[in-house]
Amino acid sequence: MRAEILSCGTELLLGHITDTNATYLAQSLAALGIDLYFVSQVGDNQGRIVETLQRAWTRSDLIIMTGGLGPTEDDLARESISALLGEKMQVDPVLEADLRAMFGKLSITMPERNIKQATLIPSARSLSNPVGTAPGWWVEKDGHIIIAMPGVPREMYRMWEQEAIPRLSPYTGGLIFTRILRVSGLGESAVEERLGELIHHTNPTAATYAKNDAVDVRVTAKAPTREEAEMLVAEMEEQIRRIFVHHIFGVDRETLQSVVGKLLKERGQTLAVMESLTGGLLASTITDVAGSSAYFVGGLVSYSTEMKAQMGVPRELLEQHGAVSEQTARAMAQAVRKLLGADYGVGLTGVAGPDQQEGKPVGTVYIAIEGPTGVVTGKGPGWRASRDDQKRLSVQATLNLLRRYLEGTIKES
Amino acid sequence: MRAEILSCGTELLLGHITDTNATYLAQSLAALGIDLYFVSQVGDNQGRIVETLQRAWTRSDLIIMTGGLGPTEDDLARESISALLGEKMQVDPVLEADLRAMFGKLSITMPERNIKQATLIPSARSLSNPVGTAPGWWVEKDGHIIIAMPGVPREMYRMWEQEAIPRLSPYTGGLIFTRILRVSGLGESAVEERLGELIHHTNPTAATYAKNDAVDVRVTAKAPTREEAEMLVAEMEEQIRRIFVHHIFGVDRETLQSVVGKLLKERGQTLAVMESLTGGLLASTITDVAGSSAYFVGGLVSYSTEMKAQMGVPRELLEQHGAVSEQTARAMAQAVRKLLGADYGVGLTGVAGPDQQEGKPVGTVYIAIEGPTGVVTGKGPGWRASRDDQKRLSVQATLNLLRRYLEGTIKES
Repeated sequence: MRAEILSCGTELLLGHITDTNATYLAQSLAALGIDLYFVSQVGDNQGRIVETLQRAWTRSDLIIMTGGLGPTEDDLARESISALLGEKMQVDPVLEADLRAMFGKLSITMPERNIKQATLIPSARSLSNPVGTAPGWWVEKDGHIIIAMPGVPREMYRMWEQEAIPRLSPYTGGLIFTRILRVSGLGESAVEERLGELIHHTNPTAATYAKNDAVDVRVTAKAPTREEAEMLVAEMEEQIRRIFVHHIFGVDRETLQSVVGKLLKERGQTLAVMESLTGGLLASTITDVAGSSAYFVGGLVSYSTEMKAQMGVPRELLEQHGAVSEQTARAMAQAVRKLLGADYGVGLTGVAGPDQQEGKPVGTVYIAIEGPTGVVTGKGPGWRASRDDQKRLSVQATLNLLRRYLEGTIKES
Repeated sequence: MRAEILSCGTELLLGHITDTNATYLAQSLAALGIDLYFVSQVGDNQGRIVETLQRAWTRSDLIIMTGGLGPTEDDLARESISALLGEKMQVDPVLEADLRAMFGKLSITMPERNIKQATLIPSARSLSNPVGTAPGWWVEKDGHIIIAMPGVPREMYRMWEQEAIPRLSPYTGGLIFTRILRVSGLGESAVEERLGELIHHTNPTAATYAKNDAVDVRVTAKAPTREEAEMLVAEMEEQIRRIFVHHIFGVDRETLQSVVGKLLKERGQTLAVMESLTGGLLASTITDVAGSSAYFVGGLVSYSTEMKAQMGVPRELLEQHGAVSEQTARAMAQAVRKLLGADYGVGLTGVAGPDQQEGKPVGTVYIAIEGPTGVVTGKGPGWRASRDDQKRLSVQATLNLLRRYLEGTIKES
C-alpha cells in the first residue's frame, strides 16, 4: 500500500508552525508497514489543494490529509475532496444533531457557518472527534482511500489512533502492537550495535530513537489479533532485556524521574538534593512528576563554594579537594541528607562550562548518593558538550544512578 | 516571485526527523516578500526527486532544495538537478582543491566517493560551506533558479543567510533587515491588538510570534541599502516601543535571564532565590546564562513547608497565612537574602497542580523580591495550566518582575 500525506494550512507556508503532524504520521505508517513516498504542504487555496489531490490520487492508494476541517471559509479540505471526486456535500442529520448538542453543552449558540462540519459526500463516512468540533472523513472510492483529519495535533492523534488505524487493518495485514523500551547510560550507536541482528528483524521490528532523556528501542509487531501481536513483542522484549539488563529503566511513557518517584513512594522514603553545576535542573526534573512532594523534601542549589560550606560541607575538605571532586560530592550528599532529614541525599558537582574550573575540564562531573546504609558514586558524561547538554546529561546520569541504587543493582562504595 | 521548497531525505518519510528546515525557510521567505506555494518532502529516490523537480520547474520561479548533498549513493540532489536540466556533472578543480585541503586539515584521507561533492554543471555556481564538506549549488537557467543546500540545519542556515539571500536581492527588490523586539507580561493576542494598524504595514512589516519565554515582535524592512533598511526598522521600533514601553525587555537573542544577569553584573550585585512550586526551574533558568556564577549565589528549593521554616520563614507566619500566600513569599525573599547574604532575595510560592493546596486553586502564585531598599511583589499567571506551563510561566513572571525592579520601573510596596 502506497501512502502520501497532504498537510493543508497557510500557516505552514508562512513558517508560523512546523508540520509535526507529518512526522507523527510518518512514524506510525512505518510501524504499520505502509510505504510513504511523498509529503506535501499546501496553503488554504482550493485550486492548489485539488491539484495536489489529483496527483496523489493517480500515484497513491492512501491519501492522508490534515488541516482544513474548521468552520471558516479558509478551511477547504471537504470542498477540495468533493471537487476531486465530483460529489456534492450534504448535511448529515446525525452529524448535525451531534454538533448542535456539543454547542448546547457549552451553552453557546452554534454559528451557522459551523454547519459545514456536519456535511458528508456519498463516498465519505465520518470519523468521530470527541475532543473537537470537526469530525474527520473516511473516503473510499475506486480502490483509493482518503483520510481527512483536523490539523490540531491533539485531535488528529486521537482520531488517527482510535478511528483510522483500526479501519486500515484490512490493508496492513493485521493488528499492530508497539512497546517502547527505554535505555539509559548508553548512546544510540552503542544501543544499535548491541541489538545486532535484531535490528534487521521484520516482524517484530526493533528500531532505536535518541530522545532527550534516553535512547528508546521501539518494538513493533503485526499479527491477526492483538494477543498474537503482543506475544511477538513480548518474545523480542525478553531478548532485548537479556542484552541490556539494567540499562532498561522503563517502558512507553515512563521517565527516569517517574521511575525513581515510584520506587521512593513504594517504600515511603524521601529524597533531598544538593547540586551545583546543574543549577536547579535536577530538583526541577524531579518535581516535574505530579505528586513528587510526597517524597521530595527539597533541594539546595549551592552555586557558590561559600554556600556549600554554609550548608554543611566541611571547609577543609573544599580547600583540600576543590569544589569539583568526588570528596565534595560525597560531602554534599551527606550534608543535604542530614540538613533536610531525608532518607537519600544526592550531591552533584562539576564543570558546566564554557570555562574550566579549578583546572578541571568542562564535562568533569561527580555524583554521590548517600542512603540509609551507605554511599554510591558515579560520574557525569565526561565529554565537552554545550552548557545546556551538560546540565541535561548530568541530571540524567544522576537519576539513573539513583534508580539503580534504589533497585539494588549497583554496589555501595 | 513564486517559490517552492523540496526537502530530500528518506529519514523524513520514516518520521525519524521533522522538517524544521522548511519552517525556517518559510519564515525567511515571508520576510523577504517571496511567495511560497508548496513544500514537498521526497525520499532518497532519483525518479521521485526528478518528478517533483519537473513539476516545480513548471510552476515556480525559485526552487529551494535541502538535503541530498552528502557523499553517499543515497545523496541524489546533484544527480537529480543534472537529470532535470540534461547537463553533465563535472569535477571542478577549485572545489576539488578546497575539499582535499579540508580533509588534509583534519589529517584524514579523503574517501574517493567524496569527489562528487566537488562537482558542478554548466548552469551551477557553488555556494561555499565553511562548516561542512558539501558546498551548495546556485543554478540559474531559463528564468528559473534552483538553490540546493545541505540538510544539516546548522550548515543550511549559514548558507541560506550568508550565500543565498544576498544573491536573491535582485529579485526581492533590495536588502532585508530584521529586528526582534521581545515582549513580556502580555499574551500574543494582546500584543497584536495593541500593535493595531502597524500589523498591516508592508515595509517594514511587523509580525508577532509566541515563543516559550516571551512574545516576539519581528520588524522587517526591505531597502536598496542596509542603512536604509535599518532606518526603516528603527522608525517602526520607536513607534512600537512607545506602545509597549516597559513590556519590551530585550532584542533579538536576549532572554529575561540574560538581561537580568547583565543588569546585576553592571552593578556588581548578587542574587539568591527560594522557590517552591517551580521546584528548581527558577534557579536552573538563571544559571542557563554562562557566567551566572558572578552574580548568582545560590538557591533553595523549599518543596516542603518544614524546609521553608528551617531556612528562616517564621513558623507562626506559615501557620497563619499558609505556605501559599504573599506573606510567605515576602518572608522567603527576606530569609534567603539574609541566609545567603545576597543583594536581592527572591521568594516564589504557589500551586503547580494538578491538585489545589490549602484551598487555593492551581495557578495561584505569589512572588516577592527583597532588595537593598525594599520589596516588590507580583503574582503568577493566575490561570489553570499544565504543570509544566505553570512552572515555566511562574519563572517568566518572576524574572520579569526582577528585571523591572532592577530597571527601576516598578514601585516597592
